[in-house]
Amino acid sequence: MAKTKVVVTRQLIDEAQQILDEKKGELEIVQWQSEKPCERSWLLENAKGATGILVMLSDKVDEKLLEAAGSQLKVIASFSVGTDHVDRDALKSRNIRLGYTPTCLTDAVADLTIMLILMAQRRGGESIAKVINGEWPQMPWHPLLMTGPQIGGSTVGFLGFGRIAQATLKRLLPFGIKKAIYLTSRPGQPAKEDHFGLVKQATIPVEPATSADQLAKESDVVIVGCALTPSTKHLVSTDFFGKMKKLAVIVNIARGPIIDTDALVKALDEEQIFGAALDVIENEPNIQANHPILKQPRCVLVPHIGSATIETREQMATESVKNLLAGLNGDAMVNEVEL
Amino acid sequence: MAKTKVVVTRQLIDEAQQILDEKKGELEIVQWQSEKPCERSWLLENAKGATGILVMLSDKVDEKLLEAAGSQLKVIASFSVGTDHVDRDALKSRNIRLGYTPTCLTDAVADLTIMLILMAQRRGGESIAKVINGEWPQMPWHPLLMTGPQIGGSTVGFLGFGRIAQATLKRLLPFGIKKAIYLTSRPGQPAKEDHFGLVKQATIPVEPATSADQLAKESDVVIVGCALTPSTKHLVSTDFFGKMKKLAVIVNIARGPIIDTDALVKALDEEQIFGAALDVIENEPNIQANHPILKQPRCVLVPHIGSATIETREQMATESVKNLLAGLNGDAMVNEVEL
Repeated sequence: MAKTKVVVTRQLIDEAQQILDEKKGELEIVQWQSEKPCERSWLLENAKGATGILVMLSDKVDEKLLEAAGSQLKVIASFSVGTDHVDRDALKSRNIRLGYTPTCLTDAVADLTIMLILMAQRRGGESIAKVINGEWPQMPWHPLLMTGPQIGGSTVGFLGFGRIAQATLKRLLPFGIKKAIYLTSRPGQPAKEDHFGLVKQATIPVEPATSADQLAKESDVVIVGCALTPSTKHLVSTDFFGKMKKLAVIVNIARGPIIDTDALVKALDEEQIFGAALDVIENEPNIQANHPILKQPRCVLVPHIGSATIETREQMATESVKNLLAGLNGDAMVNEVEL
Repeated sequence: MAKTKVVVTRQLIDEAQQILDEKKGELEIVQWQSEKPCERSWLLENAKGATGILVMLSDKVDEKLLEAAGSQLKVIASFSVGTDHVDRDALKSRNIRLGYTPTCLTDAVADLTIMLILMAQRRGGESIAKVINGEWPQMPWHPLLMTGPQIGGSTVGFLGFGRIAQATLKRLLPFGIKKAIYLTSRPGQPAKEDHFGLVKQATIPVEPATSADQLAKESDVVIVGCALTPSTKHLVSTDFFGKMKKLAVIVNIARGPIIDTDALVKALDEEQIFGAALDVIENEPNIQANHPILKQPRCVLVPHIGSATIETREQMATESVKNLLAGLNGDAMVNEVEL
């Protein structure tokens, strides 16, 4: 009997690769070998006859790939929390299951969110730059030198209030924040899911906002943590920044296009807000050294490292392989997208 | 009757300056006007006849200054948490009181400590540099790209366990740390002061270490938060780094000379530890752009901004003025050093 064919678009790490390798007896494993992202032409060519495909965020899963694979394809296992790169309708119409790894990165992203909030308030990027440029010896001390707003006593506004946002709120409580407000797709309504018991019961008020306007006006810290949809694209633009407080900061840990980058540059230039810190940005990773956002001393930009901890990436890899195998065998996945 | 003379070595901010100015009827206020640090010669000249002097961290308070002021001097009010710049014995022998502002900056420094821990683990400085240098478009994605250790599950070791360290621990709890250990001047003994009820009762073990060795060996995160004394100078040196875990990070928010900078550069060079983040460093602020620590991608250095929040600096200024006035009137200060 011919072995079941699977295609994997990346060398995996440690435990994940080991689980996969243990199946060599039953599976024909075709795996992209280079450190560079998998080439589209290689994937299209090798997908032919595959029953399962394990893909990265950088691999587009569309009609063309499904067509190239053939009707025996049963499962796509994506090593990612987002599934923007996958044509869900195409999978659904062919009855192909989709696995992903949304939960294991919650802590890593929430940790990074706290780092970014503090860097935006405490002028982290600007501070580092001054020291690296040798400016420290010439910085005359003044009581307000390099000061920023303090997080204690602040109102924190969440655009989107899912698991990562709630894990961030949990971390923020001992910093002495005063209040949390959140905007979801159901403005003014309590969040549907209460992952850590903070929606029903926290030591501070945690309340739904009725509009983006209200959230912009009241927040000292704005955290962008919602999904990217047609209605959230450029949700944060000139109008939103215009309503924010002058000492407020904004952090984006979700998807770049939710913030209008041109509007952010303008808001920073005109000191409409105090600062920003971004893990994601429109058109990433194609951010050249002359990009206008990089000229803003009060903006920190890191290269989409939200889930970049050793522990999380190992767990994501392992869960992707488990999802792949579950899909082949008709078993329950660790996390499956309802198509 | 002649007015009581006070000398203030800096223009103050908002409320603090206002409280001072309201006393113009009773006081002769001599105040340094420039944005630059007060010149020593100006201070020595103007101190003559002063009953109170409000100084910054950069103003040395020694025999020579007290001599120049004269025997009517009753109070030194320092706008600082540390009093390294003050000759306490000289004050004591002349029966001069010393006010300082140690408590109001706890939150600001603890906040910054969290930022620095996360930057050391999550490669904050390295990340920013890659983006600024235009390297993002050419960073081939890999599951371990830009990954660092995750704080969840870690053991956090505190060198010194005073108010700021304990406030940092309070913030760390919801990040899911597993254990805290601390070394004080009484190794193996429980901390004398329990500022937030965490020494007696926390949700995780919080235990005294018996030695610096033990703390170095067991910690995933080391936080330097002790006072600088002859016995803590270079407490963290080659020997200490040699015992640390390869994935551990170190953060210094106390005083530069507690860490031997040459040893730190070597430890980073040889990958004995994962990373470092410093708010203070030996010989600050004289850190030139060619300083060897600035060549280490896994080290973040910020220019002593621990207490640099608008709220804290305003409160420090106000408390300094209150201490000065209390010293003139023989009233209780907000915070007074026992000499």
